[in-house]
Amino acid sequence: MHSPNCALCQPDDSHNVLWRNDKLRVIDAEDPDYPGFTRVAWNDHVCEMTDLEPPDRRHIMDVVWLVEGVMRVELMPGKVNVAQLGNYVPHIHWHVIPRWPLDSRYPDAIWAPMRERSPEQLLAWEVFRERQYGLLTAYHASLRVALNSL
Amino acid sequence: MHSPNCALCQPDDSHNVLWRNDKLRVIDAEDPDYPGFTRVAWNDHVCEMTDLEPPDRRHIMDVVWLVEGVMRVELMPGKVNVAQLGNYVPHIHWHVIPRWPLDSRYPDAIWAPMRERSPEQLLAWEVFRERQYGLLTAYHASLRVALNSL
Repeated sequence: MHSPNCALCQPDDSHNVLWRNDKLRVIDAEDPDYPGFTRVAWNDHVCEMTDLEPPDRRHIMDVVWLVEGVMRVELMPGKVNVAQLGNYVPHIHWHVIPRWPLDSRYPDAIWAPMRERSPEQLLAWEVFRERQYGLLTAYHASLRVALNSL
Repeated sequence: MHSPNCALCQPDDSHNVLWRNDKLRVIDAEDPDYPGFTRVAWNDHVCEMTDLEPPDRRHIMDVVWLVEGVMRVELMPGKVNVAQLGNYVPHIHWHVIPRWPLDSRYPDAIWAPMRERSPEQLLAWEVFRERQYGLLTAYHASLRVALNSL
């Protein structure tokens, strides 16, 4: 169920695990460019979503949608991006990413090169991003409350 | 239910619609770099997955997983990438993307810059990609059979 060389298979009691159960864990990605970026990682070493049994698939998606829902209420992103790629770490982990028109790659995907921005835009994003950091404690608290009542 | 300026809200009877029902359609993305790249688009203009009612959310995800499952059997990708971004077109559409170690951006996301490849690698990918094109008719036929029995 675990793979010795997989980063997501190592015991994970790091401070950025926001919540866990016996199936999965919800992680603050701590990405400095995307405050609120949250990951949902399966505990066992499973590569593709269609390798999961349907009830497990529904369970992880229910958690992904719960994260998206709480994120929208608490952080009010312009758009939410949701992705399960796993080319580097082939162990199911969903990215749930709040996006804003001023972030460094919008409207491109976060894996695209950074966009050219004017000094005014960079400053505005800096100020906005700091404000978003200030919302994270409440976001994470709401997330835990919602996950506990799942 | 439809938005006048949204590309995905226009009547869509194009040849690359592989299957449709009253809720959604399955589309061949016809991306020359990623043979088999398939999209699942919601018919109504809905922006985020958490704007859908839970049964509709389950329905579109069931179709996404059916696409992934048939893709794995017919095209045998090294990895499947699944994403719902919508920064350019904020109307739910899932990308289901077969990836191979020789494709032009692997292991990066398809939105990342192209990777440097040697002439030998480029040639090998060209040959492999042509072979993949040859599998698409069978892939699309299997997809329709599976979708019809959903």
